Amino acid sequence: MHNHDLEEGTALRPTFDANGLVTAVVTDSVSSDVLMLAHMNAEALKRTIETGEAWYFSRSRQKLWKKGEQSGHVQRVVELRIDCDQDAVWLKVEQHGGGACHTGRRSCFYRRVPLGTGGAKLEFVEGRAFDPNTVYDT
Amino acid sequence: MHNHDLEEGTALRPTFDANGLVTAVVTDSVSSDVLMLAHMNAEALKRTIETGEAWYFSRSRQKLWKKGEQSGHVQRVVELRIDCDQDAVWLKVEQHGGGACHTGRRSCFYRRVPLGTGGAKLEFVEGRAFDPNTVYDT
Repeated sequence: MHNHDLEEGTALRPTFDANGLVTAVVTDSVSSDVLMLAHMNAEALKRTIETGEAWYFSRSRQKLWKKGEQSGHVQRVVELRIDCDQDAVWLKVEQHGGGACHTGRRSCFYRRVPLGTGGAKLEFVEGRAFDPNTVYDT
Repeated sequence: MHNHDLEEGTALRPTFDANGLVTAVVTDSVSSDVLMLAHMNAEALKRTIETGEAWYFSRSRQKLWKKGEQSGHVQRVVELRIDCDQDAVWLKVEQHGGGACHTGRRSCFYRRVPLGTGGAKLEFVEGRAFDPNTVYDT
């Protein structure tokens, strides 16, 4: 079930899924908060490694995109890591501009799910860092 | 393209993918490192919320599993958050036992990808925290 070379080797051999993607977890290099989750195809991963700025692949738009290309909120990659089976990467980034989330928050994870309860309401833990209407066309 | 109620509401309405899963990012509540990436179906999410311990759904084994059920390395959830479009959750956990990774490391992300280069070798940044052979049957 496990591939020794993949897990213990020093060769970058991303295991892309059926859609040609790996998952990218993005954390803030200052606060360590998880900012967002995204996906990368081979080209997005290649550009990220080469340029040190975050590129992703949009599943909804089916296109390569550079984070911040529209908003100006680019992400400079401080460190890039890959996981044991090489189907996920972790980017520690310097988040420029107000934030990573299209809703205007710094992080996409701005709501807490209460524990120990069934249907309790989500709690907002983060306010808006910027007005998305002034940043995005859509 | 964006759903206002989903993003700005206080109702937990996970948007499961075609396989009935959401993605779970797991970070260490002490070090803030990303420990692992996993998936949850509705039942795994429900049990995690109710019990405050991490449950996942294994895509390879197609079954619900409690983290640590075999290794003893359970994860107590300190905080659970959900992202803007409710298709990903972030768990801050107390990782019990040696670590989260089946290879014996604390984190699955134990190798760094050098930036600014094409085919540079991965760099190991983390040693083994436990011997997987003494913990797992497989």
